[in-house]
Amino acid sequence: MPEPRSVGLVSAQKAVFETPITLTSGVTLPRYELVYETYGTLNADRSNAILICHALSGHHHVAGRYSEDDKNAGWWDNMIGPGKPIDTDRFFVIGLNNLGGCHGSTGPSSIDPATGKPYGSTFPLVLVRDWVETQARLADQLGIHRFAAIIGGSLGGMQALRWTITHPDRVRHALVIAAAPKLTAQNIAFNDVARQAILTDPDFHGGDYYQHDTVPRRGLRLARMLGHITYLSDDGMGEKFGRMLRSGEYKYGFDVEFEIESYLRYQGDKFSDYFDANTYLLMTKALDYFDPARHYGGDLVKALAEVQARFLVVSFNSDWRFSPARSREIVKALLDARKHVSYAEIDSKHGHDAFLMEDAPYHAIMRAYLDNIAQEIAA
Amino acid sequence: MPEPRSVGLVSAQKAVFETPITLTSGVTLPRYELVYETYGTLNADRSNAILICHALSGHHHVAGRYSEDDKNAGWWDNMIGPGKPIDTDRFFVIGLNNLGGCHGSTGPSSIDPATGKPYGSTFPLVLVRDWVETQARLADQLGIHRFAAIIGGSLGGMQALRWTITHPDRVRHALVIAAAPKLTAQNIAFNDVARQAILTDPDFHGGDYYQHDTVPRRGLRLARMLGHITYLSDDGMGEKFGRMLRSGEYKYGFDVEFEIESYLRYQGDKFSDYFDANTYLLMTKALDYFDPARHYGGDLVKALAEVQARFLVVSFNSDWRFSPARSREIVKALLDARKHVSYAEIDSKHGHDAFLMEDAPYHAIMRAYLDNIAQEIAA
Repeated sequence: MPEPRSVGLVSAQKAVFETPITLTSGVTLPRYELVYETYGTLNADRSNAILICHALSGHHHVAGRYSEDDKNAGWWDNMIGPGKPIDTDRFFVIGLNNLGGCHGSTGPSSIDPATGKPYGSTFPLVLVRDWVETQARLADQLGIHRFAAIIGGSLGGMQALRWTITHPDRVRHALVIAAAPKLTAQNIAFNDVARQAILTDPDFHGGDYYQHDTVPRRGLRLARMLGHITYLSDDGMGEKFGRMLRSGEYKYGFDVEFEIESYLRYQGDKFSDYFDANTYLLMTKALDYFDPARHYGGDLVKALAEVQARFLVVSFNSDWRFSPARSREIVKALLDARKHVSYAEIDSKHGHDAFLMEDAPYHAIMRAYLDNIAQEIAA
Repeated sequence: MPEPRSVGLVSAQKAVFETPITLTSGVTLPRYELVYETYGTLNADRSNAILICHALSGHHHVAGRYSEDDKNAGWWDNMIGPGKPIDTDRFFVIGLNNLGGCHGSTGPSSIDPATGKPYGSTFPLVLVRDWVETQARLADQLGIHRFAAIIGGSLGGMQALRWTITHPDRVRHALVIAAAPKLTAQNIAFNDVARQAILTDPDFHGGDYYQHDTVPRRGLRLARMLGHITYLSDDGMGEKFGRMLRSGEYKYGFDVEFEIESYLRYQGDKFSDYFDANTYLLMTKALDYFDPARHYGGDLVKALAEVQARFLVVSFNSDWRFSPARSREIVKALLDARKHVSYAEIDSKHGHDAFLMEDAPYHAIMRAYLDNIAQEIAA
């Protein structure tokens, strides 16, 4: 029986770009590929396209399933589908794996045509503005000039924000969720500990572990465990795990004692099974470097001067990675730049991860905002 | 020229305990040594002794210097000395390195007399209550039955709290600073990531790295970097480091880019030069296990029923490791148990580390409280 309100069975497509791209770092990639999925139908005047930008560990598989017995739906399946807040009966939704990713788009684990070996340490760092550029090229291939909306949470929200600055005429609405206008020292510090865990893993081999038939599993596992703590709220963790013991008694050893340890280690193990360490490094650096105000003397208001998009900014009160205060910085800058912005601060116990969760007030706000966009396009 | 208000030149002493001790884990140590320092003079009726309990990376060298050209004073030198808040003209102050430590007391890196090799993986875990027991034995050797005060910050504050429950008649006052009645899931999670960094370091060798002529430096370095983030406040880090770049420009690589990275890596490097990884593991487990209410059905009020000590509880508003809310749990339980407690919440930007900092309002409160103790003893 088909799942209600699901986009159903989906499959990934690949876009090939033979035009070289020079990245912000100065490095040129002669060619690259982006893997993507689409849901819904592009309307006749190509005005109903929505781009979903992914966060650190996300990818192009945003909604639907790959087969009838596929246990895992896309990572934002609760948000996207027929009748869901991002309604695929009304919108043509695109999800892609960003350049540098490890889910099919060209990245550090891809074969470098120049050498016949994986790029590894030679793959360039990619900045949010570079992603926006590659996403714009994908949009060109798909015949989409202007997006009805560009939507993303966390690092994905930063891409949506960057789009409105780089291509003001190509974004009707930006939905910037659980994001920040730039990282704080503490954010960078957590990223650097995660990176050091990977970089100092003896199996990292300077980034060229592919040739050594190994992966820096220990480092990546630690990075994910640490990341995971910052995605959850103190209260949320307390409510779910508290000081619950695995066996009911203290064991006085280093095996799992508390349930939270079991959970975190499991998350780390699972992640290090499939995610590429070089991509993890690259994604954290993109986060660190993101600072659209930097070329405007640190003034975000100036950076936003040419923006045409209207905004929905959403934050979650238990998110301490990118707290509501950080979203409010974006809102204030938009208001000071005399732009249209709606802002919602959602009550949630899920911390930063809340942006991925099904939550009635959150989804109601998304639905209402997207309804308006649909009506605007239809008008 | 002698330093004003310093205890001056000090030297460590060693206490040897030939009576076996059975730890909470069930393991018996046949003998052990504790290294300690004292400042000031024990009065005739032995009523002016103060015990300083150290936190995760602390030790017995609490005040003074070892030589005229010693660059580093003891870790709480700003608090302890003639005319300082903990006034050595009035009090006899004892600092010790806890059992399991790596600064001279018997610990994992000590030689096991049974084997002639370092204990390493065979050294038992030590709980806060075990430390209290060994500290009580040290007090017995020094001829001190009742302490004027037992004082500690963080894990040290937990020892002070535990003392008042285990030995109600032996503590006149407990000063519990920047502590918590037990760790949260998030606290344990951070500790477990730190431990996993050490345990999975190939140089750890199951804890017996001494015999392999190596140390798990990478793991210990990561543990310290991570710990350090939790000792500082987001705002404090932001104010000190912000997004300041090492070279003024993005370098697009994995070397130090932001000053905060340089600072953290330096802290990690320095720490991994001198601290023992097995001791670090042991200290974090003592933190995790601490939960004096556990044997009272989780009811801290019941745990405190027999307490005779009066309390000063101090917290710092930017401390997110053990936030003021955690100190207030202790205060509330003491009040509900009808005990004497004074509580101060200090405004500080230094996060958890604030308990070690020289800060006028904080020191004024400590001084006032200790003045009262001195008068009480003299009366």
